[in-house]
Amino acid sequence: MPTEHIVRSYDEDLRRLRDMTGRMGGLAERQVADATRALVRRDTALASEVVQRDAQIDQLEREIEAFCVRLLALRQPVAQDLRVVIAAMKTSNDLERIGDYARNAAKRAIVLASLPSIGSLAGFERMAQLVQENLKAAMDAFVANDAEAARRVWEADEPVDAIYNGIFRELLTFMMEDPRNISAATHMLFIAKNLERIGDHTTNIAERIHYAVLGDSLPDDRPKADQSAFAVVRPAGE
Amino acid sequence: MPTEHIVRSYDEDLRRLRDMTGRMGGLAERQVADATRALVRRDTALASEVVQRDAQIDQLEREIEAFCVRLLALRQPVAQDLRVVIAAMKTSNDLERIGDYARNAAKRAIVLASLPSIGSLAGFERMAQLVQENLKAAMDAFVANDAEAARRVWEADEPVDAIYNGIFRELLTFMMEDPRNISAATHMLFIAKNLERIGDHTTNIAERIHYAVLGDSLPDDRPKADQSAFAVVRPAGE
Repeated sequence: MPTEHIVRSYDEDLRRLRDMTGRMGGLAERQVADATRALVRRDTALASEVVQRDAQIDQLEREIEAFCVRLLALRQPVAQDLRVVIAAMKTSNDLERIGDYARNAAKRAIVLASLPSIGSLAGFERMAQLVQENLKAAMDAFVANDAEAARRVWEADEPVDAIYNGIFRELLTFMMEDPRNISAATHMLFIAKNLERIGDHTTNIAERIHYAVLGDSLPDDRPKADQSAFAVVRPAGE
Repeated sequence: MPTEHIVRSYDEDLRRLRDMTGRMGGLAERQVADATRALVRRDTALASEVVQRDAQIDQLEREIEAFCVRLLALRQPVAQDLRVVIAAMKTSNDLERIGDYARNAAKRAIVLASLPSIGSLAGFERMAQLVQENLKAAMDAFVANDAEAARRVWEADEPVDAIYNGIFRELLTFMMEDPRNISAATHMLFIAKNLERIGDHTTNIAERIHYAVLGDSLPDDRPKADQSAFAVVRPAGE
C-alpha cells in the first residue's frame, strides 16, 4: 500500500518539523535564562557559554529552512499543513533573533561583571522569567497546534512592557545621580530592551501559530504597555 | 494552448512577487529616510507621518505572505523558484522589522524635538544614508535576481557599525558631562541602535537573496565592526 506509506511518512515529516522547531525554541529559552543568570550572578564563564552556544541556534535555523524547502518541494502541502510549514520557517527566524538578543545580553553581562553594580536586578529576573514562560507557552502551542493557547500568549506580553518601563526610568535616575553609573546603566538599558524585544518576538510567534491553525489573523492592536519611546526623565532638582 | 498560458502566468506571478517585495523595500527605505530627516530637522509632523505610515508596511507583509501561500499551493514551485518565494517571505519579515525600527526612531524624534539638542546629528545622517543605500542595493539585487550584487551588500555593513560605535561613545561622554543630557542622549542611543539593527536586517536580506539565486549560503562570519556591546566609557577624571 504505497499511498498509505506516503501519507504516514508525510505526517511524520510534519511531526518532525514541529519537533525541530520546538527544540530550537527550548534552546532559545535556555539562552535567555542563562544570559539573565550570568547577569545576576556576574558569572562571566556562563555568559561566554551563551555567546558560544548561539551558533547552535543559527545552525538549527538553517536545518529547519532546508527541511521546509524539501518538504514543500516533495510533499507540496496545502491548507493548514502549508500554513504550519510557513509558520515553522518564520518562527525559526524569530527564534534566531531571540538567540541574537540573548547573545548580546550575555556579551554585556561580561562587561557589567567588571563594573561596580548599580541598583537591583530583580526587575531583570522578573522580566526574563515572564519572557521565558511566554516563549515556552508559545512553543508548546506550536507543538500542540493549539490556537487558543497561542492567543493567550499573544495577550500576555503587557506585564513585560510594564516592567521594562520601570527599569528604564530607574536606570535613567541612577545615571543622573552619578556619572560613574552611566556605562553600566547604558549596558543594562540595552539588556532590558533586548528582553522586551524577545517578548515582542514571542508575540510574533504566537500570532503565526494562531494563523497557521485557524487561517485567520489576530487583530492589529495587541495590548501594549511600552511607552518608553516617549519617556523623558529629568534630573532631580531640574 | 492552456499549458503555455499556465507557464506564462506562473512567471507573471513570480515577477509580481518580486515587484511587491521591491515596493515594500522602497517603502521601508522611505521610512528610514523620513525618520532620520524628522530627527535632524526636529520635524514632529514628519515623525508622526512615519509612525502612521508603518501600518502600510505591515499590510504589505500580510499581502506578500498571502500571495506566497497561494503561489506555493497553486504552482508548487521547486528549485530556484521555490527558494525565491521563501526569500520573499523572509525578506518581507525583515522589512517589517526595519519598518518597526524606523517607527520607533520617529517616536523618539518626537520626544527629542521637545528637549535641548545635544551634539551633532551628522553621524546619524551618515549612518542612515549608508543603511538606505545598502537596503536599496539589496532590494535591487532581489528584483534583478543578482547574487553578486547581494554579496556586495552583505559585505558593506562594516562602516555602519563603525559609525555606530563612534556615536555610542560620543553620547556616553555627553551624558557624563551633564546629567541634563541623559534623557535626550538615551533616546539618541536607541535611535543609533535602531539604525545599526536596520543595517543587520539588510545583510540578512542580502544573505537570503544570495541563497535564493545560488542555493548555497554565505559564510557564517560577516565582516563586523560593532564592538559596542563590550564598550566601557569612563567619566573624565576617573
